[in-house]
Amino acid sequence: MNSISGGICAPVGFVSSALSCGIKTAGSDKLDLVLIYSKYPTVGSAVFTTNRVKAAPVQLSAESIGRKSPRAILANSGNANACTGERGLSDATRLVKRTAELLELETDEISNCSTGIIGLPMPMDRILPRIPDLVESLGGDGDRAAEAIMTSDTRPKSVAVEYRDSDGKLIRIGAIAKGAGMINPNMATMLCFITTDAVISKDTLDGALRNAVHQSFNCISVDGDMSTNDTVIIMANGQAGNEADSDLDLFQEALNDVTLTLAKKMVSDGERVTKLVKVQVSGAVCGEDAEKVARAVANSNLVKCSWNGNDPNWGRVIHAVGYAGAEICEDQIDISFSGKPACIGGLTANTPLTELAEAVARDEFSVEINLNLGEGKFTMYTADLSPEYVTFNREEYALTRRKLD
Amino acid sequence: MNSISGGICAPVGFVSSALSCGIKTAGSDKLDLVLIYSKYPTVGSAVFTTNRVKAAPVQLSAESIGRKSPRAILANSGNANACTGERGLSDATRLVKRTAELLELETDEISNCSTGIIGLPMPMDRILPRIPDLVESLGGDGDRAAEAIMTSDTRPKSVAVEYRDSDGKLIRIGAIAKGAGMINPNMATMLCFITTDAVISKDTLDGALRNAVHQSFNCISVDGDMSTNDTVIIMANGQAGNEADSDLDLFQEALNDVTLTLAKKMVSDGERVTKLVKVQVSGAVCGEDAEKVARAVANSNLVKCSWNGNDPNWGRVIHAVGYAGAEICEDQIDISFSGKPACIGGLTANTPLTELAEAVARDEFSVEINLNLGEGKFTMYTADLSPEYVTFNREEYALTRRKLD
Repeated sequence: MNSISGGICAPVGFVSSALSCGIKTAGSDKLDLVLIYSKYPTVGSAVFTTNRVKAAPVQLSAESIGRKSPRAILANSGNANACTGERGLSDATRLVKRTAELLELETDEISNCSTGIIGLPMPMDRILPRIPDLVESLGGDGDRAAEAIMTSDTRPKSVAVEYRDSDGKLIRIGAIAKGAGMINPNMATMLCFITTDAVISKDTLDGALRNAVHQSFNCISVDGDMSTNDTVIIMANGQAGNEADSDLDLFQEALNDVTLTLAKKMVSDGERVTKLVKVQVSGAVCGEDAEKVARAVANSNLVKCSWNGNDPNWGRVIHAVGYAGAEICEDQIDISFSGKPACIGGLTANTPLTELAEAVARDEFSVEINLNLGEGKFTMYTADLSPEYVTFNREEYALTRRKLD
Repeated sequence: MNSISGGICAPVGFVSSALSCGIKTAGSDKLDLVLIYSKYPTVGSAVFTTNRVKAAPVQLSAESIGRKSPRAILANSGNANACTGERGLSDATRLVKRTAELLELETDEISNCSTGIIGLPMPMDRILPRIPDLVESLGGDGDRAAEAIMTSDTRPKSVAVEYRDSDGKLIRIGAIAKGAGMINPNMATMLCFITTDAVISKDTLDGALRNAVHQSFNCISVDGDMSTNDTVIIMANGQAGNEADSDLDLFQEALNDVTLTLAKKMVSDGERVTKLVKVQVSGAVCGEDAEKVARAVANSNLVKCSWNGNDPNWGRVIHAVGYAGAEICEDQIDISFSGKPACIGGLTANTPLTELAEAVARDEFSVEINLNLGEGKFTMYTADLSPEYVTFNREEYALTRRKLD
């Protein structure tokens, strides 16, 4: 498996286009509308937010993907089209219809995704007239697409890999993504679009996507909140010409690599985040217990504050382990920071504090928690909590007010 | 029911003493050791943390209260005696033995509580020699006791009430408390000691305490973390001379008032908190669903950041409602701030944003969430999340290092 350039346009037969139509800010030249299109029929699959408040495009796309594989994805940033009621659904439907018309596709072949402010109607008069330009300018540049879905992201997130299967066929997977968890509040949130030229059946693709999401986007946390718009969509157009569903382990490995790479980019580009932290739990009585412990530690404000202060504070880690709801024996718990023991058997280890502090001061480090009770394991990626995160997220009111008044 | 002065010494037959023995800072005059004593036999009850990592004094006191009603409580601040292993248990036992000896009580009649830094041994050489002074100075001043259990609290928390039962007997309840939730990380955490001169049976007192805790300390949240040391202890010494278990509704009402008053004081004195927010959920299909929604909103970092910025951001509130795991219909949800509608039927209400912003800018306000599905209700008290909270909690490393190096 090799990294290649081109992002979502790297797989054969995929093109995209992006433009600025003033959803983010009227009159600005920030890209905020994007189209991804497969020239050939596809097999598609998707995973959507489990939040019971679902944005209009999420409702619509979940239905259409249930009926038909998507040939194109129309996405915008700047407005989430969430909590917009009937009007939101009708707006999303109009966007999809217009795109289908121009691409000569059925409406169920278009997926629609939105990310941005919650509760405001879509500026349809700015978006609808630009869809023809978007269709006209479809081409091989995947970079603009990655940029056009950004909200509070500070950099575009794009990745592409290729591998050769046992028959020597070259298969490519490309993807773009934005945001993490409810990393950005009113500007919901995580989107990921994946393209591949592999020949693969619908059922196999469904399983592979769920596996990949489970070990990547479901294992990251920035602020513990969950968005109304989270969406991952994959389109496979079969242009690689491989035998269908062949060498699935290779495909899964490549897909896992693509999604985990993007997931880590999301965490480290979280709002005002300064550190990427791997929380590695082992020795739990079962996998579920390991996950409970990893999530409790990865989401504890107190633990995340300590990391922001370069504080190798294992006391806060063990207290989160204690309230996670997993089976533990306090006097069996080992905790280390990047391999340096901080706590052994529930008691302070004798590693000099300065050595531990050095480990935690790095931009990337790991916290290893061994419960020493069984074989259960779980790994999560998380971030620190900074004063700047709070400042950023409390200042949106001014922004919202500017938009409304 | 009337408020009275005297705190834990207001009920007949209770005395206390407090002194500084250098647990918080060697050589300083900060009060950090306290004794509360009933001159008469008591009926006692207690509620302890559900964190599976339990501090040594919690383990010890849970056992002794199971065997015998407490006549005295010995508490310290500055060191939590948590994650201290065998040595921690033996230290707590020595403290209890020495106190029992001097008070001529059995060891099981002394409860021991600690709050402060996790993972460091107790400075026994500073504490043990001062217990005789502590016993000598027992008297009617409850204020110093409230001060001696403070850690990151900025003010002592003390309350006392009295009421007359239907026989005309005057009954008093007094209490002191410190900290909230895992409001203060390494300095674990919530303690509450309650005294009363009511005549009451053990079973009735157990029930009344659980009820009171359920509607007060279990309904507050500052940062969502849970401490290793949380403890609530009540001692009833029967000196009011009322008929046993008479007018239980009056007793419960007074006890609820005492615990809810302290719980609210804890939230509004949370670390660098600027607002006390009442989250009032109604219309859920059941009480459990209402509680899930209240907890999701009260613990959402994004919601709490918005409050810090005086932002009446109902979009963040509804997204937390959506991921709470409760049954909801998005188009049935109403949200208001201190009675002013922000969202009706899942859509933006037409209250001017400036009016909503005024409500949220107050030091105390409420958020009412009506799911309009059933009769389930739950109320929580929570706080905003400030940049100063993060700054405070990341700077403990320097403090820990000073203590260790």
